[in-house]
Amino acid sequence: MINRLCIIGVGLIGGSLARALREANAVGRIIGCGRGAPNLERAVELGVIDEYDFDPAVAVAGADVVVVATTLGATRGVFAAIAPALAPQAIITDVGSAKCRVIEAARETLGPAFGRFVAGHPIAGTERSGVEASFPELFRDRRVVLTPEAETDPAARALIADMWRKTGAEVRDMDAAEHDEVLAATSHLPHVLAYALVECLTLMDESETIFDFAAGGFRDFTRIAASSPAMWSDIVMDNREALLTMLERYSNVFEHVRTALQAQDRDALFALFERAKAARDRALPPAVE
Amino acid sequence: MINRLCIIGVGLIGGSLARALREANAVGRIIGCGRGAPNLERAVELGVIDEYDFDPAVAVAGADVVVVATTLGATRGVFAAIAPALAPQAIITDVGSAKCRVIEAARETLGPAFGRFVAGHPIAGTERSGVEASFPELFRDRRVVLTPEAETDPAARALIADMWRKTGAEVRDMDAAEHDEVLAATSHLPHVLAYALVECLTLMDESETIFDFAAGGFRDFTRIAASSPAMWSDIVMDNREALLTMLERYSNVFEHVRTALQAQDRDALFALFERAKAARDRALPPAVE
Repeated sequence: MINRLCIIGVGLIGGSLARALREANAVGRIIGCGRGAPNLERAVELGVIDEYDFDPAVAVAGADVVVVATTLGATRGVFAAIAPALAPQAIITDVGSAKCRVIEAARETLGPAFGRFVAGHPIAGTERSGVEASFPELFRDRRVVLTPEAETDPAARALIADMWRKTGAEVRDMDAAEHDEVLAATSHLPHVLAYALVECLTLMDESETIFDFAAGGFRDFTRIAASSPAMWSDIVMDNREALLTMLERYSNVFEHVRTALQAQDRDALFALFERAKAARDRALPPAVE
Repeated sequence: MINRLCIIGVGLIGGSLARALREANAVGRIIGCGRGAPNLERAVELGVIDEYDFDPAVAVAGADVVVVATTLGATRGVFAAIAPALAPQAIITDVGSAKCRVIEAARETLGPAFGRFVAGHPIAGTERSGVEASFPELFRDRRVVLTPEAETDPAARALIADMWRKTGAEVRDMDAAEHDEVLAATSHLPHVLAYALVECLTLMDESETIFDFAAGGFRDFTRIAASSPAMWSDIVMDNREALLTMLERYSNVFEHVRTALQAQDRDALFALFERAKAARDRALPPAVE
């Protein structure tokens, strides 16, 4: 049981975590923190949080666990603001999609509390945002990756792992750099490709007809391009190196396809499509979709 | 009412058309044609077709309407095979995803029947294939594009338009070249991008971990990479010119993103993501998803 939980950033992730922990009777009082009064007031109305404060240093006072669930761009500032105000035993975690930069920021700003900081990333979400979009089942059967460092207190790690398990998630430890590479490949690159596709179509003269003809495959393919631009600019900036490596890899495959198409090499295209389909069918069997 | 309908290629599209027309009581006898006995026998068992023949020239004998629903690569051969065997008033249509090449093939092979050929494309589908995957609602509220040429008999066009309306589809005429551009943008390019993404990840050392972490967004984004490799190699080959133009356009946007990321230009990335999200939200409002 977490007696006093402070959630900084009561959006889709922070709000869903609060709701899930309440449903699991795993939390006492929940204090929210954020910059937008309407969202925080709505969070109180919905029963997601009990109270809120705009000042992170006030909000964390006396909290046993502090979850930083802001966008990545705000994380360093939040760490700096809360560091002097944390209770001596407070455990801190975050939910950012890129871990190396967050850990660097935490190490530089949290001072002695860094040993009680457990970097985390619930691999869950929708393209919606804000507390209205939150729901308690968001993390059920999803992965939460924790990327503890050498200095991380094992008891703090265990408590955060336990907190996530109570939401129905499966918790896994990973090296921060490996996490960032894996996420660049499976999430950050696809988002960039989808945003770029939509941008590409908007630049065309016939873009009105084109969007009018956007059918099933396109809808699925570009759903992630409806994600929050602010959140995603932060993510791609924070995971810049790993993402640039992935963009280079992708560019090579893209050029391979383009060359094959220019050369009318149907066999090469067929072979690539077949390999890709087989890999996807193995990873995500059609039966479970 | 179509008294005698011949469907060459009884797969997802051909099978779903047969089922939809039966449900609408818009068809008498349905003759199937294909190369695989198990699929055709299954189609008879399921009541999708009444009988079948492996020889297209035999299957079309006496048919009022002939629907060529094979993969694009087989279309020219089928046209050549059926041309001498068509009934004098038979109306011919197809369902291919790229229209200019199909029309060229029809013009060169169908002889006097070309005036009764109505090129068509139902913009509907799933990533599955074969008659087992077919269902009568596939075309409901979907678009069917017809791309008649100057020589196309208006009565033939009207009959094919009527046939598709009976499946619940909305029929629209379009210039063949415009169709091919629009589809290259909204369908063929996204498929290529998705196949390329999966290929890119399979080439990585950590590909096992990566696929293991493939979550929601990735699943949606790559669903189209589970589509039939044979069908899609045909499509991209048949719509090569329009697709190469789109690959060039996409490549420019991709490089713009890469340059912005290399330059740590968060504002440029945010602006692009924001434009893309706004365009997608306009085209596919979140509320209807």
